Amino acid sequence: MFYPENWKKLKRGPQVILWKDAGTIISTVGLQSGDSVVDAGAGSGWLAIRLGLIVGEKGKVASYEWREDFAGLAEKNVAKAGLGKIVEVKRKNVFEGIDEKDVDLITLDLADSEKVLPAAHAALKEKGFVVGYSPNVEQVRRFVEAGLAAGLEQFRVVETIEREWLVRPQGCRPATMGLMHTAFLSFLRKPARKE
Amino acid sequence: MFYPENWKKLKRGPQVILWKDAGTIISTVGLQSGDSVVDAGAGSGWLAIRLGLIVGEKGKVASYEWREDFAGLAEKNVAKAGLGKIVEVKRKNVFEGIDEKDVDLITLDLADSEKVLPAAHAALKEKGFVVGYSPNVEQVRRFVEAGLAAGLEQFRVVETIEREWLVRPQGCRPATMGLMHTAFLSFLRKPARKE
Amino acid sequence: MFYPENWKKLKRGPQVILWKDAGTIISTVGLQSGDSVVDAGAGSGWLAIRLGLIVGEKGKVASYEWREDFAGLAEKNVAKAGLGKIVEVKRKNVFEGIDEKDVDLITLDLADSEKVLPAAHAALKEKGFVVGYSPNVEQVRRFVEAGLAAGLEQFRVVETIEREWLVRPQGCRPATMGLMHTAFLSFLRKPARKE
Amino acid sequence: MFYPENWKKLKRGPQVILWKDAGTIISTVGLQSGDSVVDAGAGSGWLAIRLGLIVGEKGKVASYEWREDFAGLAEKNVAKAGLGKIVEVKRKNVFEGIDEKDVDLITLDLADSEKVLPAAHAALKEKGFVVGYSPNVEQVRRFVEAGLAAGLEQFRVVETIEREWLVRPQGCRPATMGLMHTAFLSFLRKPARKE
Repeated sequence: MFYPENWKKLKRGPQVILWKDAGTIISTVGLQSGDSVVDAGAGSGWLAIRLGLIVGEKGKVASYEWREDFAGLAEKNVAKAGLGKIVEVKRKNVFEGIDEKDVDLITLDLADSEKVLPAAHAALKEKGFVVGYSPNVEQVRRFVEAGLAAGLEQFRVVETIEREWLVRPQGCRPATMGLMHTAFLSFLRKPARKE
Repeated sequence: MFYPENWKKLKRGPQVILWKDAGTIISTVGLQSGDSVVDAGAGSGWLAIRLGLIVGEKGKVASYEWREDFAGLAEKNVAKAGLGKIVEVKRKNVFEGIDEKDVDLITLDLADSEKVLPAAHAALKEKGFVVGYSPNVEQVRRFVEAGLAAGLEQFRVVETIEREWLVRPQGCRPATMGLMHTAFLSFLRKPARKE
Repeated sequence: MFYPENWKKLKRGPQVILWKDAGTIISTVGLQSGDSVVDAGAGSGWLAIRLGLIVGEKGKVASYEWREDFAGLAEKNVAKAGLGKIVEVKRKNVFEGIDEKDVDLITLDLADSEKVLPAAHAALKEKGFVVGYSPNVEQVRRFVEAGLAAGLEQFRVVETIEREWLVRPQGCRPATMGLMHTAFLSFLRKPARKE
Repeated sequence: MFYPENWKKLKRGPQVILWKDAGTIISTVGLQSGDSVVDAGAGSGWLAIRLGLIVGEKGKVASYEWREDFAGLAEKNVAKAGLGKIVEVKRKNVFEGIDEKDVDLITLDLADSEKVLPAAHAALKEKGFVVGYSPNVEQVRRFVEAGLAAGLEQFRVVETIEREWLVRPQGCRPATMGLMHTAFLSFLRKPARKE
């Protein structure tokens, strides 16, 4: 297990993807031990670490990051999490192409992530998934439309709201304030070839 | 990857734990490839399969089920999911004890799951988690109170709401009807010994 | 009081605005007994009736509806609700203009409601509100942008989710399925003149 | 209209009931101009003012408050809101009885509000509503059970979540943080006599 307190030992640079959204990604696509994943951009490496914990030593996560400062940060976090052999931080601009082939899952948390979708289509296995993490609805729309144009299928678009509860001697109730929004998750899928 | 359509090939008997809740469990505790898990009751085996996909061949899931019909169903589903070597369906009443030791995670989806908590405490590793899946608030309260009495710490109680979005040429909007509630997830934790 | 069962005696043609959204409108703007309201389109007359109940005999609701069939339906519903002297169903296309002046509140539930905003600005009192009821996010955006262009201020955009609870001897829990979305409510406001 | 900025001119002592919950109450019961309401405790007078705005000069709101400091505060707020002739702040402990008869609506925001329910039953019109405002689920349960014991019917228990949206040139998205919980609203109803 990678305990919740371990995350506090990692350095936090750019915005990170929270556990609730990582959980939705893992569960929706059925990610499992041994899978092959491409992630971009690495940012602080949070999502790459989450995915690396799941795919394990028989799996692989390639996390693209063109900004040298973020790449260095992500690399250190990956090492601290003990995933140096599983997660590779690649100093490369994902908009220039994806090296990997037969990938199970591609996760995109980038401003113009829809521009990666033709390359994502080429890199994915049949039935594989690409997921866009988009704070704004307009980004969701561009992502889904560009995906359809690139030959991908729309699987689902979802947002997850977690509500914390206070369970105390004086009574049970949800916490007053909470996280109302992080991002929308858009799942696209490479169709199986028809024979 | 264990594709979404694969679940449709499994048989569905008793109520199953949905992906959204499995995702919250996996993400909150930091479950990873190689972990050791106890699950009760197996029911249709859904959650045991979800957890087995994550822990992989270096890990282990023991799923307790005292009802012969459910145990048979869960066992068939586990085999169909290709996890026969990872997930063991145990024909045993978990209220009579947990055989495993040094367990990372225990998941309980039972009517009186709070009665398992002393045994769960004994079976868990230090810092390990036990999660209760409870549809009603009264169950949450009993679970948390029994856990505190058994020497466990309250980590978080949470509910997850997923909202599906329709992204179409005519516009983007959430779906009209949806799943408002499955269950509350109560996370308890075995404290580390003070030295 | 206009009891919940009374609504069942009214005829239901086009989609109606639900109580939760009517409640948000009334509460946000501070609608009170005696206010003057313009509503378009009338549809089945539901929202006009809700508003008429609040403004009472000292107030006034003018509800525009250019489709003869809907106007007839709304008129019958208004009469059944006993609001014939308060709510006037006007057989007129609101896109051609608003007759009323010094209006406190204008509610718009129309496909292209943003086109009414210049006329709404002219009809409103200073500090008065115009509310758009929009199922899709793109409509919200067009509405807000057209409002700003027409000299209105953006007050708030909000969606309301009501969750029903089951309170029974066996326990308390939210209902499993429920209404996840009706529409977004966009509140624009006519600014007070600077002196 | 009682403009949103007017609330800022009122003094705020004890916790106030927010617009979203006032809106749900008004809409669910069908409150209208001319109705008769009992409210307890007055607190800062917020809800009494909301209800007074709706019932208007032909209606009446009696708001009970036994704490002299709160009663004074509520009275000043009511006067500032211009509702001195509609809302009466009564310096009386509602647990000792309700003076009014044939009341349309009773709103209870008190620690042990279930103890008022027999008196509420006696004060209500047939088909009239009593609403409990309860932060904790345990309070909801006690309220509903005491209501059934007092001869009232369970109408609905509901919670309302409002989500604010940011609509900006760079895109549309919900606000990151927000109000996750205020209270549960339990609606009980006095049945019509069977003839």
